[in-house]
Amino acid sequence: MSVGSMKLDHIGIAVRSIDECLKIWQDILGLQLNMVKNIPQQKVKVAVLDLKNIKIELLEATEEESTLDKFIEKRGEGLHHLCFEVKEIESVLSDIKEQGVRLIDNVPRIGVSGRKIAFIHPKDMGGVLIELSEKDYKN
Amino acid sequence: MSVGSMKLDHIGIAVRSIDECLKIWQDILGLQLNMVKNIPQQKVKVAVLDLKNIKIELLEATEEESTLDKFIEKRGEGLHHLCFEVKEIESVLSDIKEQGVRLIDNVPRIGVSGRKIAFIHPKDMGGVLIELSEKDYKN
Repeated sequence: MSVGSMKLDHIGIAVRSIDECLKIWQDILGLQLNMVKNIPQQKVKVAVLDLKNIKIELLEATEEESTLDKFIEKRGEGLHHLCFEVKEIESVLSDIKEQGVRLIDNVPRIGVSGRKIAFIHPKDMGGVLIELSEKDYKN
Repeated sequence: MSVGSMKLDHIGIAVRSIDECLKIWQDILGLQLNMVKNIPQQKVKVAVLDLKNIKIELLEATEEESTLDKFIEKRGEGLHHLCFEVKEIESVLSDIKEQGVRLIDNVPRIGVSGRKIAFIHPKDMGGVLIELSEKDYKN
């Protein structure tokens, strides 16, 4: 197998209740819980599960009408986004924009982990919501 | 960071056209294409992209009214399933069933890679379609 140069940092899953879903992921699949934290500024609670090669984030909306709450109302619970690790996020965003792809965040913001992050619009990415996260950058 | 014991083998993404989507994943995100193959028995064409820590499979339906074609008609293109690596698939399926979780495949079948695989019903897994794939088993 060839090995690519990009790394996937985590997979985000939208859930109605982290407590309910942890039963599934921990008890049924045997995944290991790293932490649960509230992110009031993003109106979400996040449970981080560690696998050998990747992290899974369970995302619960903490306010009605928040972006995540609207996603769940429209699409139901399930797979939400993929987060790729990049080196220089500003330069990657500029390249992507030049190719006519719409960005949700034209300018990076500071994510939950303290890293610079930005989301790409799923309409130009085959229906997949993609987050970019700058490696080694910590606020 | 703690490290879990489970490994995610790949992420499946439902696409209308592999040719169209490869532009996105290769040109925009710089992912590396490993192979494209037709799987007539499953009525899909698969493009495997290699990342450092995981594989992404782009899945295109090759027949109308196939399971994948129906998924795309109903939900649109986007994230489709997660595939976890397990050691003894029969024993894992039996444990899962005992916990009242519905399986799509009660008995493993041979997947694209030649491995024993089985799908768990998304209704009992928080809306996430999950594939299990037995490590080291090759047909």
